[in-house]
Order: sequence, then structure tokens, then C-alpha cells
Amino acid sequence: MRYELYYWAGIQGRGEFVRLALEEAGVDYVDVARESDDNGGGEAALLRYLEDATIVRPPFAPPFLKAGDLVIGQAANILAYLGAHHGLAPHDEAGRLWANQLQLTIVDFLVEIHDTHHPIGANLYYEDQRDEALRRTADFLKRRAPKYLDYFETVLERNPTDSDYLIGATLTYPDLSLFQIVAGLRYAFPRAMARLEKKHAGVVALHDTVAKRPRIAAYLASDRRIPFNEFGIFRHYKELDAKR
Amino acid sequence: MRYELYYWAGIQGRGEFVRLALEEAGVDYVDVARESDDNGGGEAALLRYLEDATIVRPPFAPPFLKAGDLVIGQAANILAYLGAHHGLAPHDEAGRLWANQLQLTIVDFLVEIHDTHHPIGANLYYEDQRDEALRRTADFLKRRAPKYLDYFETVLERNPTDSDYLIGATLTYPDLSLFQIVAGLRYAFPRAMARLEKKHAGVVALHDTVAKRPRIAAYLASDRRIPFNEFGIFRHYKELDAKR
Repeated sequence: MRYELYYWAGIQGRGEFVRLALEEAGVDYVDVARESDDNGGGEAALLRYLEDATIVRPPFAPPFLKAGDLVIGQAANILAYLGAHHGLAPHDEAGRLWANQLQLTIVDFLVEIHDTHHPIGANLYYEDQRDEALRRTADFLKRRAPKYLDYFETVLERNPTDSDYLIGATLTYPDLSLFQIVAGLRYAFPRAMARLEKKHAGVVALHDTVAKRPRIAAYLASDRRIPFNEFGIFRHYKELDAKR
Repeated sequence: MRYELYYWAGIQGRGEFVRLALEEAGVDYVDVARESDDNGGGEAALLRYLEDATIVRPPFAPPFLKAGDLVIGQAANILAYLGAHHGLAPHDEAGRLWANQLQLTIVDFLVEIHDTHHPIGANLYYEDQRDEALRRTADFLKRRAPKYLDYFETVLERNPTDSDYLIGATLTYPDLSLFQIVAGLRYAFPRAMARLEKKHAGVVALHDTVAKRPRIAAYLASDRRIPFNEFGIFRHYKELDAKR
């Protein structure tokens, strides 16, 4: 079976958490909106699907993944599915719940990261909410980012196996997502992250370990990895990362 | 087995989505922080747990549910667990994924509802971000609330069984959560909701059907249901609901 990922072609966004899992799993997939229109791809294919009134179980928004007859929406939900089917999640119920719990906490973190540059509304331009973004980002960097990073550092410290990973001795899908969070925060807030990383050695080690995994390293070096940019979730605006 | 729910004692918040599922399932549970301190309860018990350095898999924040040896955090994760064990979710994989997908979309909606009154930071008082809240709420009521409500209306319309519920012919846990969203929006934005409800008859019918279920009706009439207030997610500030 060839998976079909539907996500915006020009950004990492929430789709990137799925891309990383598909790459690490080494499965066959097509990133539909990045295919040419001639091939039935492009964002037009994505929009056609979203507007198709015959879909009985429609997704609210991208990303969604076609897996044979299944169409699965919401990144954390897609990851739970891929984790269970491709060895990227624990097998026991307690482990599966724990992986999902960590992933949902990463999603909460991600929403707060997004809202640093869009505190008033995703439909408005950054430039039209820049003053509010400055205020929100100050609170985020002072209180929220440290709180989340402290939490994941604690989870890593308490992992009884002493691995670099969040759960047990082997990689699971939340590790891929936490890697992406660190990579994104480094892009968006290089100044603030340099300071924060000093207190979160375990989180940094997890990032580095994931980045070196052969399939992830190959993916990051390929043109399948879209560069960070100012249309995605992690955006670098110098004024937001400035000393205050 | 007696479930132990850990959540703040004075608000509905994210814990309410779990309370509704426990009530509908008719299972034995204790709402720990609402018990007296003498009984080992109170918010002190909750804080003791959060600060306990011996917990191998610590939750980031309440709510969390003790289920025998399991401790499950993140409301959507708790609901997936309760749904699977107490007949509040489909049995097949496709159905379980669909229920989780809907729940995660409800969570996204909930975060946006919360941020109407706290667009700058959860740690700051509403009064210190009132101007930003006015702006964010205007965008929320104009664009975001209709978008989410339209989506759930569509899901209800496309349910092939023609029931009042989101999935198939019987109630599943996302129905309970969507009920809570409607109840909360009515409390927070009575003026705006009166207008929005006219275009979302299916969502309103779902709310009314859930409210009449015997166990939910009994719960809502009991003192176990904490009234809405201005410390929770759904807050009524007259200026945010004013005509603009």
C-alpha cells in the first residue's frame, strides 16, 4: 500500500510531524500537494478533497493521510495509527496511552509556539498583530517554553532505560515530534534557545540522536525537507527573539 | 475498580470532558480534588501528585485519571481510554480513529475558545489583556466559531444513520464533548450563539439529545456539576459578547 499524505506544499507545519514518521518508518508514500498537477497532485488535489461533498467522514483541515480505504485526520491521530502499524509506538496499552499523552502535550506546545506570532487570529497578517505578538512572545519565552522543556527534560530523566528517547530504549513517534520542536525553536528563536538549551541537555541530546538516525539524516539532507520559512508554524522574526 | 479523576475543584475546564464521560458510562469514580482534605482529597492531593518526583510517567497538567495501575493524562487520551473500555467509542479501528479525530478537532476549538479571553498569556489576568481579547474575540466569533460549527454540522449531516449523533446510531464520547462546547458557548457568548445556532440545527439537536440522556440529565441537575464561572475556559464577559 502506498500512503497518500495531504498537506500544504510550501510549509512544514503540522504535516511535518507526519512526514518525519513516514520517513523513519521507511514506508512508500506520496506527498500529494507537492506532486505536479499533471500527476493528479498539487494543492488543487488537496482542495478538491476538502470540498468534496461525498466524503462521509471529512477532515477539518490538513494534514490527512489516505491509508487504503481509511482517511485519517489530525496529526496526533495519524501518528497513533502509523506508530501502531510501523513499530513507532509501544505495543502495550499503557505504552500506547503514554505515547499519545506525550504527543498531545507536544501539540499543546506547538499551538503556543504558533500563537507567538499570531495571538489575535490566524486569518490576520503578522504585521497586523505585531504589538500583540511581542507581548505574547515575551510571556512564552519567559514562562511557557521553559515549562514545556522542563517537563520533557523530566520525562527523559525518569525514563528507566537511560536511553536518549522519551519511552523505553527505542525510538517512538513522540521522539520525532520533539526533535521537530527543538529544530523549529532553534530556527524561530535562536537567541532565546541558546539560553534555554543550557538547562535542557536531555532534550538537546534527543534532538541530536534523532537527527543522526540514517533515514532522518537522509530526509533532512533531501529536497523533500521543506526549509523553515515565514509561512509555517516556526517563524523567525528578529524582533520577537530580541533581548528584553 | 474505582477511577480517580484529578482536576481542579472549582472549574469545569478540560476536566469536564472527562467528568461527562465518567457520568455517562455510569462507572464508580471519585473527583479527588473535590473531596475533603481529611479524606486524602483536595487540591493538595492533586499538587502532591504533580510534584512527586517518584512518578515515572508524570502528567504535564490536570486532568489525569488513575485507572488501577495506569495514570492517564490529556483529556482526549483519557476519553479514548474510557471510550474503548465502556462502550463510548466504535469497536473497529476506522471508527476509533474517527472518534479520536473528531475529539482532537473539538480540542482545537476549545483552545481557541479559551484564547478569546487570554490571547496574550494564561498567566496574566484577563484585565491585563482586555484590549487584545476584544480583538481576538471579534475574529473568533466572525470566522473561527462559524468554521468549526459548520464543520460539525456537516459531519452530522453526513452521518449515514440519520441519528442525532456524530458517529453511527449511538452516542460516542465526542458527542458528550460537543454538547459541552455548545453549553459553554451559550454561557460565554449568549448573544452571538443565539445568532450562530440558527444555522446549526444539527449541532443544537445533538446538544439537546445529550442533555436529556438520563445519566447526563441527573448529573447536570446534581451538585457534582460545577456551574460555569469566570475562572474556567468558558467565561462570560459582557464586552466580548457585545454587538460590533
